[in-house]
Amino acid sequence: MILDSPVSVFSSAAVGGKKEGEGPLGADFDFINEDSRFGEKTWEKAESKMQELAAKAALKKCGLSMTDMDFIFAGDLLNQCIASAFSARGSKVPYIGLYGACSTFAEALGLSAIFAEGIAQNCLAVASSHFCSAERQYRFPLEYGGQRPPSSQWTATASGAAVVSKNERPPFIKAVCFGTVEDLGINDQNNMGAAMAPSASATLSTFFKDTYTDPSDYDLIVTGDLGAVGAELLKELMEKEGFDLGENYNDCGLMLFEREKQQVESGASGCGCSAAVISGHIIPKLRCGELKNVLAISTGALMSPTSVLQGETIPGVAHLICFSSEKGGIF
Amino acid sequence: MILDSPVSVFSSAAVGGKKEGEGPLGADFDFINEDSRFGEKTWEKAESKMQELAAKAALKKCGLSMTDMDFIFAGDLLNQCIASAFSARGSKVPYIGLYGACSTFAEALGLSAIFAEGIAQNCLAVASSHFCSAERQYRFPLEYGGQRPPSSQWTATASGAAVVSKNERPPFIKAVCFGTVEDLGINDQNNMGAAMAPSASATLSTFFKDTYTDPSDYDLIVTGDLGAVGAELLKELMEKEGFDLGENYNDCGLMLFEREKQQVESGASGCGCSAAVISGHIIPKLRCGELKNVLAISTGALMSPTSVLQGETIPGVAHLICFSSEKGGIF
Repeated sequence: MILDSPVSVFSSAAVGGKKEGEGPLGADFDFINEDSRFGEKTWEKAESKMQELAAKAALKKCGLSMTDMDFIFAGDLLNQCIASAFSARGSKVPYIGLYGACSTFAEALGLSAIFAEGIAQNCLAVASSHFCSAERQYRFPLEYGGQRPPSSQWTATASGAAVVSKNERPPFIKAVCFGTVEDLGINDQNNMGAAMAPSASATLSTFFKDTYTDPSDYDLIVTGDLGAVGAELLKELMEKEGFDLGENYNDCGLMLFEREKQQVESGASGCGCSAAVISGHIIPKLRCGELKNVLAISTGALMSPTSVLQGETIPGVAHLICFSSEKGGIF
Repeated sequence: MILDSPVSVFSSAAVGGKKEGEGPLGADFDFINEDSRFGEKTWEKAESKMQELAAKAALKKCGLSMTDMDFIFAGDLLNQCIASAFSARGSKVPYIGLYGACSTFAEALGLSAIFAEGIAQNCLAVASSHFCSAERQYRFPLEYGGQRPPSSQWTATASGAAVVSKNERPPFIKAVCFGTVEDLGINDQNNMGAAMAPSASATLSTFFKDTYTDPSDYDLIVTGDLGAVGAELLKELMEKEGFDLGENYNDCGLMLFEREKQQVESGASGCGCSAAVISGHIIPKLRCGELKNVLAISTGALMSPTSVLQGETIPGVAHLICFSSEKGGIF
């Protein structure tokens, strides 16, 4: 979907935990909490708090308040998406809850863009994840100290928020491509990168074909959280489709941490990973013109611990946002 | 949001379990399975199967195939919404996953309507719930035989699907009102009706005020799954707002089962409840003109078992769809 009138990403903000603050993008966060609880009693409540902090910071930067928002599009990884629901409580803004696993931030940005091009003036897109709440929900209680295989990823304790508006402030969202559910039969829940790479490839190649563009038209093509394993597989899959991702390709999961030093195996993951990297790192670079045309593809693995125990394979989905520092051009 | 060009609900279908087939709306289902498994090995897989069957039946009725769909908007109650993700696998249609608890069907219909008014030709809205998968996930394993208090509700084993299109076949979606997250402090997870009534009241009264209409302008105002307790509370709350819901008000949770005979305490609940009643019962009546103007408000309780154990109260959200048998009129 190419937007007839590109919409502005009016402002954005990112919030992270201690480990995220110690990574290469530490300086890009608007707020870093020194423990994992953000002053709350539980990790689940901490995740709601992160979303609130990210939203508040994004609103403050553009001089708007929550009451100026027409819609909130939000989601997270917790069962029943409670981080998002609880943080929207009290906002008095219509709330559209999403679940796209780790693809949620692009899903929220995409819907925000469609709405802001149409009926809405301002939309708020938010997503989050939390290492501690995700570990105990998806894998093992932290106290158990489960071993992590090399293909596993480290769920980011982070949240990103963006205000998407009808106005003239760069950067702009020029196009959105919602992805299809793809499943090539991966059933190892410690190898999410491999499970998600086919969906990223499907969305990216569909987008290139539909828009008659190719990887060289963009300064940066960035996936959400494929990690080292998934990023390599994506390059292979894209080559088969006839596209060379080349030097401009990166993955938020490889950007957030120093993999070896911070011991995150294949890289970062979680809704919060692409949400924070896009909001805190990529959008500001687009705003100042350091980046011109960027494709961001958040990737999600649509499994649950129950589906894995029931012998199901792991389908993936990937949603793409095409950003530009200028309102005209590209297409 | 009043749609400048109302969109058509081109077709719809409902699928249910044995108990749903024995209820007063049994004849309105397109497909009833005599056990709870729909030929699958687990209840979770059965729920995916229900969504597939509902989608297939809706598509068959309007002579379209899955490849004619531009987007799927879907959600369910299972952790990580696996029923929806797995049933969308293989469809090759862009998939937008939603989580709005039991409000999901109206959320999906609302987004489908906005998209079909704009860029899309055809959207598929789907939602489901399953008594057995919901009980073991939210409450107790069925084998435990937990007692049910009078305010509790019976999760419907059902799915509803609707094709929302740019065309001239009645009925039409004339307006959509996405709701805010409301929380008046209910913390009893066996009293979802009370937890959700405030959000239904907020959405309904906002809609009446914004459109300068009142309950007497509609043949039927139907909430999703407030049950007997929640429906009474909604009437009270609406009276305080100055609106008398009167004789035209009903609740899908009160329509699906014969409460006493079928032992469902306060009524039916679950995404599948409003999805099946709207798809199987209300839309056909609108199509033949037996109903003219209908407001359907699906209601969701945005809690998780974890949030309840952590002492959180239960916020609700309610999304409204305004249907009409004619393209013109009302507003």
